[in-house]
Amino acid sequence: MSESFTKTLAAFAAAEIKPTELASKIACLSALDWLACGFAGRNEPVAHIIRRQALADGGHEHSCLFCGGLVPARAAALVNGTVSHALDYDDTHFAHIGHPSVAIFPAAFAIGEKNKCSLPDVLSAGLIGMEASIRVGLWLGRSHYQAGFHQTATAGAFGALIAAGRLLKFDATQYETGLGLAATRAAGLKAQFGTMGKPYNAGLAAATGVEVAELVALGFDAAEHALEGPLGFGATHDGEGNQEGALADLGRHWHVEQVSHKFHACCHGLHAALEAMRSLEMAEPEIARIDVATHPRWMTVCNQQEPTTGLGAKFSYRVVLAMQILGHDTARLESYGDDALFSAPKLTSLRDRIHVTADDALAETEARVSVLRRDGQRFEARHDLNQEQEYSQREERVLQKARALLGARRAEETWLFLKHDQELKGMVGRLMGG
Amino acid sequence: MSESFTKTLAAFAAAEIKPTELASKIACLSALDWLACGFAGRNEPVAHIIRRQALADGGHEHSCLFCGGLVPARAAALVNGTVSHALDYDDTHFAHIGHPSVAIFPAAFAIGEKNKCSLPDVLSAGLIGMEASIRVGLWLGRSHYQAGFHQTATAGAFGALIAAGRLLKFDATQYETGLGLAATRAAGLKAQFGTMGKPYNAGLAAATGVEVAELVALGFDAAEHALEGPLGFGATHDGEGNQEGALADLGRHWHVEQVSHKFHACCHGLHAALEAMRSLEMAEPEIARIDVATHPRWMTVCNQQEPTTGLGAKFSYRVVLAMQILGHDTARLESYGDDALFSAPKLTSLRDRIHVTADDALAETEARVSVLRRDGQRFEARHDLNQEQEYSQREERVLQKARALLGARRAEETWLFLKHDQELKGMVGRLMGG
Repeated sequence: MSESFTKTLAAFAAAEIKPTELASKIACLSALDWLACGFAGRNEPVAHIIRRQALADGGHEHSCLFCGGLVPARAAALVNGTVSHALDYDDTHFAHIGHPSVAIFPAAFAIGEKNKCSLPDVLSAGLIGMEASIRVGLWLGRSHYQAGFHQTATAGAFGALIAAGRLLKFDATQYETGLGLAATRAAGLKAQFGTMGKPYNAGLAAATGVEVAELVALGFDAAEHALEGPLGFGATHDGEGNQEGALADLGRHWHVEQVSHKFHACCHGLHAALEAMRSLEMAEPEIARIDVATHPRWMTVCNQQEPTTGLGAKFSYRVVLAMQILGHDTARLESYGDDALFSAPKLTSLRDRIHVTADDALAETEARVSVLRRDGQRFEARHDLNQEQEYSQREERVLQKARALLGARRAEETWLFLKHDQELKGMVGRLMGG
Repeated sequence: MSESFTKTLAAFAAAEIKPTELASKIACLSALDWLACGFAGRNEPVAHIIRRQALADGGHEHSCLFCGGLVPARAAALVNGTVSHALDYDDTHFAHIGHPSVAIFPAAFAIGEKNKCSLPDVLSAGLIGMEASIRVGLWLGRSHYQAGFHQTATAGAFGALIAAGRLLKFDATQYETGLGLAATRAAGLKAQFGTMGKPYNAGLAAATGVEVAELVALGFDAAEHALEGPLGFGATHDGEGNQEGALADLGRHWHVEQVSHKFHACCHGLHAALEAMRSLEMAEPEIARIDVATHPRWMTVCNQQEPTTGLGAKFSYRVVLAMQILGHDTARLESYGDDALFSAPKLTSLRDRIHVTADDALAETEARVSVLRRDGQRFEARHDLNQEQEYSQREERVLQKARALLGARRAEETWLFLKHDQELKGMVGRLMGG
């Protein structure tokens, strides 16, 4: 590997690329998931504030905002990145240690709308941008994340730049300049977790991509080695710099294929147990007792015993498992909206039959449930969020989530648009809730 | 010192503050210097590009741009920060390791114009913002700069936030939130030196200040400890965290008093020698030989022997000293504009009588010149850029520079405006060249 990381990534982005069919399908599914998360997050307080600032600035009506309004592409990227990450319900790539779509799609759609690009081009730019952000995330590595940087924001900024560059038809040199310039604006701290600063980080990444790409298109220059040089972004931000690992099989293997989607509107630590329980298809009346085993780190995160509010329920194995078994859709935000549910006898009775223990033989993405039926029979299931799933299953689950967030009709309309339309015109704003 | 750095800085910014008369005068002088540098930089290529992007986005006509155009405050801060740092001719604070005014004044003027603040309030906000940025710069320390971060951009962002907050009448809690949120957007790498990325860093700082202040005014929240916590900006960006040193005499001593201005439009390494030579008031015909002693680090930076272009001259002791002695105004950009000068016999003859050597007993800010007159007499002078100067001398020199950059009439008009006017209305755009 003689070429630099920057040059290799730039050459990848500038090439005629044929992604695998699966990677393209997953990117399209992530676009659906992203639109659903952004629409569902459009009335969060952080969404109102960030949108209000953009509308107060005004400007040319180039790109749509979730919940209405048209603003310049750079402003739209900031707003839509922030809004779509507001619920923390968007997709994840575990190796990249971040959420690819909330940094990439806001940039790709904003630039795509402004420049009247075709929908397939926007989705393709999104895919290349996501793949690039995952590769940069791998290059920065776990040391970068552990030091305190929010990969969604930092690696995301470089991916957003590449997505925007695709739509502006950059050549390899322009990508190199863009990666160099993005290195001086890319930022975002994990310290913001739990505040509006977290979704803002995603918006910053998207806005960096747009601002930097547009400047480079106008002839801006930047240091060539600002990403990877001795005083570059990696060196100054605790990057591991494992170039060989990060670039392995670039253009042949697509990390985008391993992007995973959240199917429950609650703490990620609960998802493996929910999936394991779901596979047993057990009805409430027959359940005598449920034992849940989970990785020890989750015991202090999401093992509230008897929460009485929806917010508490989102951090409680006992309550969300009971909800799921009783037929409440754990993917819907509204399912957590009525606090009365959490004191209802039917739910508390089942909840009290559920027991949670830690097992350090399990991975963080794993859980095991063991159900004792009233007839004395015992059933066990285990789930690992990292395990491969059939594409058809994934599509069905994301569609189900989209229906829960958008309603059946809007979900269907959004999916048909993403799969079949050629032009963006008019549709993006409509699907964003404008 | 029991309070945190953030809380102490926020309380300082929120208090009724009475700066020293000298600090206020220096801030006003820096505003003049900043307007002169921005005006002089308005036609640099980087200025055209960054302004073109802002005008293409459009938006409400709240704040003026150097060389014309009115855009939203956030966009104006990015443009004017970038333009005013384009020539690298703006002020410096050596302990802060950065250029205070190019990060602070673009934010203060943009927010001030948008919110119809008075001129004295804008200048006062600029002063508090500059002082805060220097304090943050001291807190981040030399380790931060050595690691690769551009203090003008990073510390500058926090100062810009505080300047903007003053004009939006923040209380202490809002400053704390603002410092926390700015911590996730503040960025800028030294790797950009020598490219358009360097002035862009100053623009980023100013834009961060405006964007974050406006979001906080609208009710945005952020992590309280994102500046100084264990995963905060300081910890993640190689900050020294010398809180006691950084906050010493806060509100009593004003570091702004030590801001220094550049009086020659050439490499900073040449300035001490130019000042030393200037003090001897020597005419060309009587000079037999000049010996210049300088700190060793400058020998590879600005000791070109026989440059034949203006750009080369800016990095040549022999040539700029000869220019000054022959009466060319080294403060004017145009003095370096005609390459013919550098091959003219009068200049090359004097140049060849000048000899430069390194002396590691000298500080980086010091130089010594020794002149042998044709009559055999020897005259010596030494200058240290850090040595205190009378305010009246400083004012005269900055005015002289402003006249060189703006022309006598515009310089006079700008200075009268800054010293006496109460309202911004109409004047800022006019003085920026609009």
